[in-house]
Amino acid sequence: MPGIPSILILKPNIDRFPETEANTLRVGVVLFPGFQALDVFGPVDCLNVLSWSHSVTLALLSSTLEPVTTKPPASPNALGQSVVPTHTFRTAPSLDLLFVPGGLGTRGSSPVIEETIAYIRDVYPTLKYLITVCTGSGLAARAGVLDGKRATTNKMAWGEITALGANVEWVPRARWVVDGNVWSSSGVSAGIDVTLAWIGKVYGSEVAGKIANGMEYTWHEDSSHDLFAELHGL
Amino acid sequence: MPGIPSILILKPNIDRFPETEANTLRVGVVLFPGFQALDVFGPVDCLNVLSWSHSVTLALLSSTLEPVTTKPPASPNALGQSVVPTHTFRTAPSLDLLFVPGGLGTRGSSPVIEETIAYIRDVYPTLKYLITVCTGSGLAARAGVLDGKRATTNKMAWGEITALGANVEWVPRARWVVDGNVWSSSGVSAGIDVTLAWIGKVYGSEVAGKIANGMEYTWHEDSSHDLFAELHGL
Repeated sequence: MPGIPSILILKPNIDRFPETEANTLRVGVVLFPGFQALDVFGPVDCLNVLSWSHSVTLALLSSTLEPVTTKPPASPNALGQSVVPTHTFRTAPSLDLLFVPGGLGTRGSSPVIEETIAYIRDVYPTLKYLITVCTGSGLAARAGVLDGKRATTNKMAWGEITALGANVEWVPRARWVVDGNVWSSSGVSAGIDVTLAWIGKVYGSEVAGKIANGMEYTWHEDSSHDLFAELHGL
Repeated sequence: MPGIPSILILKPNIDRFPETEANTLRVGVVLFPGFQALDVFGPVDCLNVLSWSHSVTLALLSSTLEPVTTKPPASPNALGQSVVPTHTFRTAPSLDLLFVPGGLGTRGSSPVIEETIAYIRDVYPTLKYLITVCTGSGLAARAGVLDGKRATTNKMAWGEITALGANVEWVPRARWVVDGNVWSSSGVSAGIDVTLAWIGKVYGSEVAGKIANGMEYTWHEDSSHDLFAELHGL
C-alpha cells in the first residue's frame, strides 16, 4: 500500500501549527459556481501535502452541500468540474484560516455570491488568517474586510476588481501582499506562492520548501517579483 | 454577469483542434482514490481556460460515478477532497486525449487501480494522444503502453516508478518527454507545463501563451530544464 514519502515527513512536534488547540490547523475554502479550479486546488494541494506530516482539517464551504461546479455562469460552452462541499456556510466549523478563491463566478450578485460575501464578512473577525487568491479579493473587498488594508489581485482583471474596493490600498506590482492577518495574491497560480509563503511563516521555511519540492513547483519566494503586472501595463 | 475576458478570446476558427470532427477536442482524465489534486487540476484548469475560446469536452472517468477522493489510501490523517466523475470506464465516450494523473493512490493493486490500468491498456490504441502526469506514468507503464518508449516521471518517486516499466526508456532529466503520441511529465506541477506544451503544439503557441498568462503561470517552456532531477540526484 502507498506510504507517505519519507522525505516529506518531518520529525513530529517540531513545528506544528503553534496557535491552535491540539496543534491542529483548521482551514476553510469557500466554493461558488464558477470558482477557478487552480485557485482552489493549488493552495489545497499544498495543504494536502502538509497534512501528510502535520495535523490539518479542511472544510469546503458553500451555500448547500450540492457539488459546486467550476463552470462559469453564463458561459454555456465552458468546461466545469464538480467538487463536493463538506459544510454549508451555516454549518461551518470554527476556522483558523479561510481561503477565498477567485474565478469568473465571483462577478455579479447571485444568491450564492451574496451568501459567500456575507459569510466572509461574518467569519472574518473570528479568523486568525484570511488568504485571497486571484479575484477572490473582489469578494473580500465587497465584504468590507479589506478596507484600510493593502491588497493585490489578478492583474488581467485589475480595473474591474480594484473598483470593488474604494477603501482598499491596492498594490499593483506584487505576487502577493501581507497586511496584518490578510494575505492576498495575484492571479490563479500566485495562490500557490502565497500559500507556500504562509506555510513558511507559520510552520517554517523548511516545511514550505519540502512541499514545493515535493510538488516540483518552482516557488516564487519574492512577493514583490511580478512579471504579470508588467505584462498588463500596471 | 461574468464574461470571458476578451484578452483570452481568439478569433474563432483560426486554430481550432484540427484533427477531430467539428473541431471539438475530446479529453478524458482518469480518477482514482488518492489522485494528486494538482496533477488533475493543473492540466484541467488549462483546459477550462482553453474551453473559453475553443470547443472542448471533458470526461472525468472512474470505476463508478461516486465522488472520488484525493485522500491517499492507508493515510488516515491526510486530507481529501471529493470530485464527481462524469462517466465510468464502461460508459466512457470516445476520446482524442487521455490524461493519467499520479498520486499516492497509484501504488498497490486495489480493484479501482486494476480497472484504471485495464482502461488505459484498452483505450490507448483509440487515442490520438496520451499525457501522463507525475506518477501517472507508473499506471501507464503497468498498462504496457509505455513499452519501447521514452518517458519521464516524478523525480522523488523515481526508483519506485521506473521499476514498474522495465521496457521503458526512462529519461531522468526532463520536465516532460514526448515520444510519438505519448507525453509524460515529471512531478505534480510539471503537469501544467506538459499541458501548455501540448496545447502549444496542437493549437499554436499564441493560444498556450495566453492561457499561461491568464493563469499568471510562469510556464517552463524548455522540456529539458529540470531543477528537480538535480535536487534528487538523478
